[in-house]
Amino acid sequence: MKILGIDPGVADTGWAVLEQEPPAGTIRLLASGLVRTPASDPLPDRLRDIHGEIEGLLREHAPDAVAIEEMFFLKRANTMRATLQARGVIVLAAAQARKSVVEYNPKQVKTTLTGSGAAEKAQMQKMVQRTLGLAEPLRPDDVADAAAIALCHLRSSRYKSLKVLDRVGRDWRDRLPEAK
Amino acid sequence: MKILGIDPGVADTGWAVLEQEPPAGTIRLLASGLVRTPASDPLPDRLRDIHGEIEGLLREHAPDAVAIEEMFFLKRANTMRATLQARGVIVLAAAQARKSVVEYNPKQVKTTLTGSGAAEKAQMQKMVQRTLGLAEPLRPDDVADAAAIALCHLRSSRYKSLKVLDRVGRDWRDRLPEAK
Repeated sequence: MKILGIDPGVADTGWAVLEQEPPAGTIRLLASGLVRTPASDPLPDRLRDIHGEIEGLLREHAPDAVAIEEMFFLKRANTMRATLQARGVIVLAAAQARKSVVEYNPKQVKTTLTGSGAAEKAQMQKMVQRTLGLAEPLRPDDVADAAAIALCHLRSSRYKSLKVLDRVGRDWRDRLPEAK
Repeated sequence: MKILGIDPGVADTGWAVLEQEPPAGTIRLLASGLVRTPASDPLPDRLRDIHGEIEGLLREHAPDAVAIEEMFFLKRANTMRATLQARGVIVLAAAQARKSVVEYNPKQVKTTLTGSGAAEKAQMQKMVQRTLGLAEPLRPDDVADAAAIALCHLRSSRYKSLKVLDRVGRDWRDRLPEAK
């Protein structure tokens, strides 16, 4: 199972491709990076660039699904306006490539990775680094966040598949942090 | 000069194509309509449909520019999230078709059409109807709003071209409501 995680932004969109052998093998980081667009470009051009880059990533890595953050609260209205429009073209690229798009909110990602919905950034960074067996934390934060959301989806999918395998027994998910 | 005006929404996107003979001829409504997507569809599918419909309109009507509202304040955060993502894929379609995209905020549209930034919806409706020489007001509101923003751009462009023609004289725009 191969997941493209995306942390959308109009200036910097972080992305990470994670792979896991089913049903619960090691999770590897296959590739990651940032899509950057210059603030000096008009928004339409920046959206076109972001859409084109995401299209390219979907073609190159052929993920099984795209995991993207649900965005609720952003501090500055300006940032939110641009970020949501960027998110729109990213979700569009996934839909055009007939990929399923899964959304998790920040609390779900934190809970799934650390067991606490209030986990700090440093703790999240460490969990991502450890789970992927990396020598150093992923940088910058946008890339680490993209990896975290992809990881969240792999963990959640894993629970879902365990659930199916374990249908005659008790519900494993009852004992796990809320995964979706 | 042919302008596609768009009032973005994820459920209902209003659009209107207006044409004006340069430099200041009669403005005609060539076509208008609504792009609707069912609430029962997942967001990625709805964004794909909206993008595809706008692509079709751009091909069919070949406007010189696309005029779209700048969105600042929307009452419900939920509506804003979806609307901004829809706006993103609409602006993207315009950029992909190499059209210039012009933005006006609601106050600019009202001021340009009625002389007052606080004009009521009914007054805006009437101005749109009268300027386009229509027997009845445009319905629904999303279509009327799309026509209003296209009209705002034609008026603003006209002032700009007058400005250029009048370069050696005084600035005409100083005597006009703020148009951009």
